[in-house]
Amino acid sequence: MVRISIIGLGLIGTSLGMALRSAEASESPLGALEVVGWDRDQRAVKEARGRLAIDREARTLVEAVRDAQIIVVATPVLAIREVFAQLGPLLASGTVVTDVASTKAEVAQWAATLPSGVAYVGGHPMAGKEKAGAKAADPELFNGAIYCLTTGRSTPQAALEAVEAMVRTVGAKPYYIDPEEHDVYVAGISHLPMLLSVGLVEITGRSAAWKEMAALAATGFRDVSRLASGDPEMHRDILLTNRVGLQRWIDEMISFLLEVRDQVDEGDAEDIEALLQRVREQREGWLETRPGLRPGEDAFLHQPEPERRNLLTFRLPRRRS
Amino acid sequence: MVRISIIGLGLIGTSLGMALRSAEASESPLGALEVVGWDRDQRAVKEARGRLAIDREARTLVEAVRDAQIIVVATPVLAIREVFAQLGPLLASGTVVTDVASTKAEVAQWAATLPSGVAYVGGHPMAGKEKAGAKAADPELFNGAIYCLTTGRSTPQAALEAVEAMVRTVGAKPYYIDPEEHDVYVAGISHLPMLLSVGLVEITGRSAAWKEMAALAATGFRDVSRLASGDPEMHRDILLTNRVGLQRWIDEMISFLLEVRDQVDEGDAEDIEALLQRVREQREGWLETRPGLRPGEDAFLHQPEPERRNLLTFRLPRRRS
Repeated sequence: MVRISIIGLGLIGTSLGMALRSAEASESPLGALEVVGWDRDQRAVKEARGRLAIDREARTLVEAVRDAQIIVVATPVLAIREVFAQLGPLLASGTVVTDVASTKAEVAQWAATLPSGVAYVGGHPMAGKEKAGAKAADPELFNGAIYCLTTGRSTPQAALEAVEAMVRTVGAKPYYIDPEEHDVYVAGISHLPMLLSVGLVEITGRSAAWKEMAALAATGFRDVSRLASGDPEMHRDILLTNRVGLQRWIDEMISFLLEVRDQVDEGDAEDIEALLQRVREQREGWLETRPGLRPGEDAFLHQPEPERRNLLTFRLPRRRS
Repeated sequence: MVRISIIGLGLIGTSLGMALRSAEASESPLGALEVVGWDRDQRAVKEARGRLAIDREARTLVEAVRDAQIIVVATPVLAIREVFAQLGPLLASGTVVTDVASTKAEVAQWAATLPSGVAYVGGHPMAGKEKAGAKAADPELFNGAIYCLTTGRSTPQAALEAVEAMVRTVGAKPYYIDPEEHDVYVAGISHLPMLLSVGLVEITGRSAAWKEMAALAATGFRDVSRLASGDPEMHRDILLTNRVGLQRWIDEMISFLLEVRDQVDEGDAEDIEALLQRVREQREGWLETRPGLRPGEDAFLHQPEPERRNLLTFRLPRRRS
C-alpha cells in the first residue's frame, strides 16, 4: 500500500486525487494506493471528499503527511516555499516530495531547504482549465497530457521512479527537463499566451469605447482572451516566479510588434504575407503532431485543409509606399 | 423577384449564398430571391454551385451583374478597389453595392468612384472561421451574428433598407456604425487578437528551442494561436487597410507589456493581482452578455463560476523588492 498525500485541494490537487483513486491497483505501477488530502480551507477538503478525490481527510498538516511515501504539494506557486518550510520537520527520511507548479527553477531552490534524506522531484502537468478549484476537478485532466519532471544532481533514482509511476498512473506522459529550460520554454508557450490574453482584455477594457467594441467582439476575441479568465492567484504567482523566462518573451513580442508596425506603415505586402503564410504552416504543423494536446483537444480545430488552389479569387494589387 | 449577385465565392460569399437560398421567401423581407455568383476562378464557382450557394453561375462579370438589384463584393479587401473600377461602367442606376470586408474606411473611399446613381452600403459580418474558401462555407455562419453596416451622408434610404433586409434574411443583426469608428474598434477586438496570435507563433516558431517547446504547448497555446491559422491573404489585406486603427492598439499593447515587465521586475504582487482580477471580471462580464457571440458559441466556456471563497487555500507571502 502506497500512501500519497496531496497538500492543497484546488483544481490540480483534486483532479490528481480523483485520477489516482480511479486507477485500477492492478494496472498502476504503484499498486494499491491510499490518498490523503489536506487543505488550509476545510471547505475545499469537504469538496474533494465529496468528489471521491481522497480516501482520508487530514485535520492537520502533521496528520496529512504521517506515513506518506509521496507528498504532492499542489498549492499556488508562492505558497510552496512556506509549505516546504512547514513540512521539513515532519517528514521521515525516504519521503518523496513533488509539486505541480507552473514554474520550476525557484521551487527547486526552495526544495533545497528540505531535510537531507527527503527527495524532491519537480512536477508540472501540462493540463489545466481556466476555471479554478475543486469544483472544476476532472479525473481525466491528465490523461494523455505531458507531465514535466525536473530533478537535481542528487535526486535518488527511487524517488524519480516513484513520481514517474504516479504520473503514469494518472495517464500522463513523463517528460524530463531541466528546471531553467522548463521555465523559459513554458514562458513562451504558456505564460506569454496568458499575458497576451490579459493584455488584450486590459487594453480593450480600459478603452472609452469598450461598450461598442464589446458588441462587435466575437469568436476571435473569445479564444485569444480565454486565458484572461484564469485564476488570478495562480497567474500572479507564475508571473512573479518566472521573471527571466517571461522578460525574454516580452522583449521578443515587443520587437515583433514594432516590426509589423513598420511593415504596415510601409505597406510592405510581401513581407506581411510571407509572415502570415509562415505562421499558418508553423501552427498547422504543430496541430498535425500536437504532442502536447490530449486526444480530442484538437478535434474541433483540426479539419482537412481546403485546397488553396481553388480559393485564389483575385490577385493582389501590389502596394508599396 | 430580387436578384442578388455575389462577386467572389470564398468562405463568406459562398456562405452568404447558401444562407440566402435556404431562406423561406415568405419569411424574408426581400421576398423571392435569385442568387447569381461569379468568381475569377471557375473552380470556386463550381464549388459554390455544388453547395447550392447560387441559382445561376455567371461566366463574366457583365453577366454576373446584369439586372441585379444588390451586388455583394466578397473578395479580399485589397481586390475591392479594382472590382469597383470594373463594376462602375456595368451598373444600372439604382443598383445597390455592398461588400463584406473586415475594414471599412478605405473601402468607403473606393466606393466614391462608383457612378452616381449607384448606392454603396458597407458591410462586415462579425463571423468567420480560420478556414478559408467555399469548402468551409456554412449557411448558418451569419445566424445570430452582428453584421456591421456603414453608410455615407448621401446613401439613399432605399439602399440601406435593401441591404438591411438581406442581412436579416441570413439571420444576422444589423449594426450601424461609422466606418472610421468601425476600423478602430475592430482593430482592437479582431485585428489585434489576430496579430497577437501571429506574433506568438512567429516568435516561438523561430526560437532554436521550438521543437522542445512544441512538445509542451497545450490548450492555452492552441487557443491563443488559433487566428494564426487564418487565411494569409485576408489577414494581409486587413493589416494593410487598417493602419491607423492597428497602430493605436499595437502601441497600447507595447505599453501594457512594458508595464507588466516592470511590475514583474519589481515583484509588484498587488498590482499584478489587481490586473488579473480586473481582466477576469471584464472577460466574464463580456461572456455574460456576449452580444457578439452567436448562440452556442460561448457554451463550452460559459460555466457557472465556482465560489472563490472555497478555493483560497494558502495566503500569499507578499513579495516586494
